[in-house]
Amino acid sequence: MSIEKTVSVGLGDRTYDIHIGRDILSAAGNHLPFSIDGRRVFVLTDENVLEPHARTVCAALEKTAAASVSCLALPPGESTKSFAALERVLAWILDQGGTRQSVLFAVGGGVIGDLGGFAAAIMMRGIPFVQVPTTLLAMVDSAVGGKTAIDVPQGKNLVGAFYQPAGVLCDLDVLNTLPAREMRAGYAETVKYGLINDPEFFLWLENGGGKSVLNKEPDALIKAVETACRKKAEIVEADEREGGVRALLNLGHTFGHALEAAAGYDGDRLLHGEAVAIGMALAFRLSARTGICPATDARRVEDHLQAMDLPTRIGAIVPKLAASPDDLLTIMKRDKKATAQTIHFILLHGVGQAFIAKDVDSKDVLDILTE
Amino acid sequence: MSIEKTVSVGLGDRTYDIHIGRDILSAAGNHLPFSIDGRRVFVLTDENVLEPHARTVCAALEKTAAASVSCLALPPGESTKSFAALERVLAWILDQGGTRQSVLFAVGGGVIGDLGGFAAAIMMRGIPFVQVPTTLLAMVDSAVGGKTAIDVPQGKNLVGAFYQPAGVLCDLDVLNTLPAREMRAGYAETVKYGLINDPEFFLWLENGGGKSVLNKEPDALIKAVETACRKKAEIVEADEREGGVRALLNLGHTFGHALEAAAGYDGDRLLHGEAVAIGMALAFRLSARTGICPATDARRVEDHLQAMDLPTRIGAIVPKLAASPDDLLTIMKRDKKATAQTIHFILLHGVGQAFIAKDVDSKDVLDILTE
Repeated sequence: MSIEKTVSVGLGDRTYDIHIGRDILSAAGNHLPFSIDGRRVFVLTDENVLEPHARTVCAALEKTAAASVSCLALPPGESTKSFAALERVLAWILDQGGTRQSVLFAVGGGVIGDLGGFAAAIMMRGIPFVQVPTTLLAMVDSAVGGKTAIDVPQGKNLVGAFYQPAGVLCDLDVLNTLPAREMRAGYAETVKYGLINDPEFFLWLENGGGKSVLNKEPDALIKAVETACRKKAEIVEADEREGGVRALLNLGHTFGHALEAAAGYDGDRLLHGEAVAIGMALAFRLSARTGICPATDARRVEDHLQAMDLPTRIGAIVPKLAASPDDLLTIMKRDKKATAQTIHFILLHGVGQAFIAKDVDSKDVLDILTE
Repeated sequence: MSIEKTVSVGLGDRTYDIHIGRDILSAAGNHLPFSIDGRRVFVLTDENVLEPHARTVCAALEKTAAASVSCLALPPGESTKSFAALERVLAWILDQGGTRQSVLFAVGGGVIGDLGGFAAAIMMRGIPFVQVPTTLLAMVDSAVGGKTAIDVPQGKNLVGAFYQPAGVLCDLDVLNTLPAREMRAGYAETVKYGLINDPEFFLWLENGGGKSVLNKEPDALIKAVETACRKKAEIVEADEREGGVRALLNLGHTFGHALEAAAGYDGDRLLHGEAVAIGMALAFRLSARTGICPATDARRVEDHLQAMDLPTRIGAIVPKLAASPDDLLTIMKRDKKATAQTIHFILLHGVGQAFIAKDVDSKDVLDILTE
């Protein structure tokens, strides 16, 4: 096992470390802020990740003398972020004698991390949990920062908790088996940090770093994951519960969520990261259109996303969305960050200069959606 | 409207006030840390409390220019603290366009407060909520301190969150219609604070204060509710998430929860406060038996509880429990505060001298249960 980088998320008594390296799963019980010895341990995963990753984690935890190790593999996909699955996870832990000292490991992508984190948050009002992200997107985004949630019929992520993990284990070896399309989707959330407030990172990605990440070159991967985790940690430390600056992390997400909803949350049609890529391109075009951002920056971002083989236009979604621009605007107005009258957008003065805009004209948004 | 006393619960950016007084419901939109003006407001209650208390609250909120006021009355009783009811409450808020600026009022006893608080905690990862307790027990205990939960088949309160209200409104007028048995049950949680660490308060209750509270005499009620809220606030301020001293609030509860479980959570047979009264008497007898507390103190507490017409013996439960002392011990070992090997008890060196005991001999417990 080798840990190459450790990023600390400083949140007082909820501080935790993100370990980034190779062959970490086979020592998953080490490098936590507490000993596994004598604890009941629960490993939540999905059927696609069970073999070999979750099995490796279970074997490692048995080696570190857990009192018991139990594994539950749920069906893959967004439909697992449901009340029914939440009840199943809670019952699984309780039926096997889980206590407040038990530990839940979430081994998987964003779905398993969000569901597992929420279950840990509300089990006996909170038990320790550990994020073991197995996708690039989960490593650079969903596993870090403590947002947990499930979906309800009224919308995605509408029920959940802010609940920080006790640790995050990013084993880059697991990316070896990740499909190229999922790598690209995770890349969209990675490049986001450059666009928000790190123009040098964006420049590095643009000048070959991005291609190296998608090619899974070790040094580039380490640098990208570490940078993304560090940027996210800085923002979460400044605003854990999304009262202010944390909203910057939603760059591309107001548009993106509307597109995902219109696509029926169909992962074959549109992955979350792809929706965010289109959303970021739209945010830059909206910024350029309203004169606050140079058109050259919007062009530059679109060019880079396209060079990484990411979609940047609504028309790129296949099959084509049935939703009209008006439909998309209506969906955006239901976003949980929206207040009674306004939609919040993250707009940009340029690459690396994102800000929270609360007075965006619906007409400008409609024009951008219509283009 | 008159507010007679205000107790502040100091928890940094989660600090809030408990207002205690008369005719507060008719001005429920005032005395909050934010304006209701323009917000969607949701009033959760049960069918017994709907008329007139919840209606009074709704009318008051309409007067203070809420954007909309919606009321949901659920069936009374512990069975409402369920996953099904939780989903219903969340859907009710979402279907009516609730946002993060919406406010949930919980108007009722412990069941509505616990369910409403939990729903507010997980709705969009947390919306403001206001506790409006309508029982003495809720005023002195469950509405204060931020413990929220639902029950699951594996046990009571096993799924929930620590989530502080934005305010607590204790309108003593609502106690005018509270049945005598429920007053006594709430009294058990009131006298608990004297037994934990306030011998003067216990002396006052013993010397006529207790009778005056049960007779709903205004000055005595104010003093008792204020003292209980202040004592609870002090303990919660010192230990919000029950890592240490907060466990003292469980005086009488390890025994009490086991008795409630054995009685099938049947409120006709045994109210929570009655179970706590028996539990406190058992805790004193266990303390006296193991030689750490004078037998005269145990006797004195039992005499006072009996004088207040509260049960102090397991045999007082009608119909008689089928559970044996061994059964009760087994239930206690499943308590969520229990660790793998030990049951935590709150024992006493005397009146007002409670402490957390982690090394209680099961044999002594069995003997006390057998008596």
